[in-house]
Amino acid sequence: MIDYRRLRVALLGAGAVGSQVAHLLHTHADELADRAGAALELAGIAVRDVDAPRDVELPRELLTTDAETLIVGSDIVIELMGGIEPARAHIQLALNSGADVVTANKALLATHGTEIFDAADQVGASVYYEAAVAGAIPIIRPLRDSLAGDRVNRIMGIVNGTTNYILDRMDGEGAEMAEVLADAQRLGYAEADPTADVEGYDAAQKAAILASLAFHTTVPLDAVHREGITGITKGMMDAARHAGYVIKLLAVCERLSGRADVADGAEAISVRVYPALVPRDHPLASVHGVNNAVFVQAEAAGDLMFYGAGAGGMQTASAVLGDLVSAARRHIAGGAGVGESTRANLPTVDIGKVVTRYQVTLEVDDRPGVLARVAGILSDGRVSIATVEQSIAEPTGPDEAGSARLVIGTHTAVEQDLSETVMRLAEDDVVERVVSVLRVEGD
Amino acid sequence: MIDYRRLRVALLGAGAVGSQVAHLLHTHADELADRAGAALELAGIAVRDVDAPRDVELPRELLTTDAETLIVGSDIVIELMGGIEPARAHIQLALNSGADVVTANKALLATHGTEIFDAADQVGASVYYEAAVAGAIPIIRPLRDSLAGDRVNRIMGIVNGTTNYILDRMDGEGAEMAEVLADAQRLGYAEADPTADVEGYDAAQKAAILASLAFHTTVPLDAVHREGITGITKGMMDAARHAGYVIKLLAVCERLSGRADVADGAEAISVRVYPALVPRDHPLASVHGVNNAVFVQAEAAGDLMFYGAGAGGMQTASAVLGDLVSAARRHIAGGAGVGESTRANLPTVDIGKVVTRYQVTLEVDDRPGVLARVAGILSDGRVSIATVEQSIAEPTGPDEAGSARLVIGTHTAVEQDLSETVMRLAEDDVVERVVSVLRVEGD
Repeated sequence: MIDYRRLRVALLGAGAVGSQVAHLLHTHADELADRAGAALELAGIAVRDVDAPRDVELPRELLTTDAETLIVGSDIVIELMGGIEPARAHIQLALNSGADVVTANKALLATHGTEIFDAADQVGASVYYEAAVAGAIPIIRPLRDSLAGDRVNRIMGIVNGTTNYILDRMDGEGAEMAEVLADAQRLGYAEADPTADVEGYDAAQKAAILASLAFHTTVPLDAVHREGITGITKGMMDAARHAGYVIKLLAVCERLSGRADVADGAEAISVRVYPALVPRDHPLASVHGVNNAVFVQAEAAGDLMFYGAGAGGMQTASAVLGDLVSAARRHIAGGAGVGESTRANLPTVDIGKVVTRYQVTLEVDDRPGVLARVAGILSDGRVSIATVEQSIAEPTGPDEAGSARLVIGTHTAVEQDLSETVMRLAEDDVVERVVSVLRVEGD
Repeated sequence: MIDYRRLRVALLGAGAVGSQVAHLLHTHADELADRAGAALELAGIAVRDVDAPRDVELPRELLTTDAETLIVGSDIVIELMGGIEPARAHIQLALNSGADVVTANKALLATHGTEIFDAADQVGASVYYEAAVAGAIPIIRPLRDSLAGDRVNRIMGIVNGTTNYILDRMDGEGAEMAEVLADAQRLGYAEADPTADVEGYDAAQKAAILASLAFHTTVPLDAVHREGITGITKGMMDAARHAGYVIKLLAVCERLSGRADVADGAEAISVRVYPALVPRDHPLASVHGVNNAVFVQAEAAGDLMFYGAGAGGMQTASAVLGDLVSAARRHIAGGAGVGESTRANLPTVDIGKVVTRYQVTLEVDDRPGVLARVAGILSDGRVSIATVEQSIAEPTGPDEAGSARLVIGTHTAVEQDLSETVMRLAEDDVVERVVSVLRVEGD
């Protein structure tokens, strides 16, 4: 056994991830020391209530409610409390005390990332956050380091396990969302209040972090266009399957360049979260259950995909410990911290300027001339039709006249043109109902 | 424009990858400087012949045949010459001169890695080699850093694009190997002498590198069991498809623990390259063409997969430039280099001790009692049958009597038991021919 230098590690939070981190720090102590080149001594675990019941038993003498004292005496601080305060204040205190920081706090990074990275730069410390996006899947290091010499053009990520579980089961079993969501809650895959997941807030935070890294740009959370999955019905899933697609909640980060709608050929980016149609033969289509995957298109590297478990206490703990070893190596090696590069600082364009393909499903009167009328409205709105499929819809009530369903696949169109055109369609006499409007990504 | 500190970069080699690196260093100079925090000045390009024709035009004044002088005056040396000498000597000279090193040289790392990493440790320099395995796919950093706090139990990699292209086309088109190989050579996916690829030498080098990193152990190249794909026929591919498998050349790196065949419960590893049957629903089965993918199973992180282009000048240049930015950041930050941890140093077990499942295909006499006879031989050899499928084989000539084909899927068996049993089967009167013996991985 080598007599390594000791580093004092403070753990803030002892929830599902924190208690696994404490457990693995203890059981794998020798291996971690060999890899870090330092003995990682768990100096204490800051919790709100030392008597709270926990899944994993933790040594009582390590628990403390005095986070500040613990932080000030530590070399590395692992923040796993979540939320904005007091996590933000604790991380600031850690950096000011000369500690390196490991965090899994996506909400904090998506809202206060710039402030935290600047503070780290000023004191020459580093902030590691592999666990903040896509759990155990290494995606932060690949974007920050491996692709640092390349230009990322596009990211499409399935970064929320709860919504992927729901959509995957709806797709696989033809189930309705309500019953799958209830199952997910029973199995612990969804919270009692599922808003953060199903409305896309969680995915939007991760999208902001991924886009910031990929485009070397500060992407504020409110620059991320966000739509959730609550509008997705069994009927929409069935129609998607029939057309060779699957519906996935995607975080799309896109570099826009050389496009007419971006002024003077300057570059811009679009960051958006929404349910989209993904072709069945796209690698993202086969990401099942609560798994996550991030598909990256880079100028030189081409297409890359990173796949794995997106959540779970153990899995996220793996990412935290990887960061801890990196932080320890850096702490021992000395030298300046590695800051985030945001020198590109590309502007974010509004969702209205995004160009993509769409699938528009309409219920229309079943009589001659209707298709010509619909096609005319689309054409007037600068939306070009790629495919049309017409079928007779079942009457929804005894008083209903015969109606037909039109599934229209468009060529690429500008979002604003498309949405104005859909409004005109909705107001037109021949259109009974706009059933769905979905973007198509990845083809 | 920020006035960055200048770092002198030496490029050794101007082939497909080197010329792309030189090109991207020039065209992306400003972006690279922002990301590295240093201006990366290409000080020179060492080549064998300054007048040789090249795909990408390089500034004549940068070319030199005097590699030593170039190296000694540089901060970072990029070695893209390939082969053992003079690459080995040049890297040693670079490290001794205080330079950090970026290399894509898998042959050198698989044979002289320990010597090179030790030399880097002694002078406090770092060696980066993301491009040495699986081209642009980030796999070195995830294994070295992201999973440093976890325990990797198993890696299955498709790490050779040429053989994946050949097997994928044989599978998709029912083609014979000879015609696909000729196509691959015509398209530049295979060398005129394809031995290094089709016999698994290239994959074995990568397997040694991956296993060394994953298990924190020095894995010499001759500890890697290696079989190529030249024995794979159209008939074997068809039979695999029929049984729900696809044949892939896999690099398998496995941690063996708690097994009866490993003495005293101590841990050991197995590193092997061979064509194996992979279930069609395994993520590796859908890796097509010249693409690569590395599937990693870790104790805490669970299953991860990294997918992308495994070769190509541009793609590999992306990985080299990512390493260059890392090397530059480290060079600027100062501090000690990050050495490779080989403290675990687990022993490698012989292929004979490996435990896996097998599919054995036999041509046998078509008469009663044959199956009982074959089953008896297997049972005597401690090989347990999981599935048997029998079909009537077509006579191969006018004098042939009727014969039947037996496709036997085994439960897990010890390789040595299996191979001895297959020998006894081959010598038995009822067996006309052992058609194929293939391992099954990933189920």
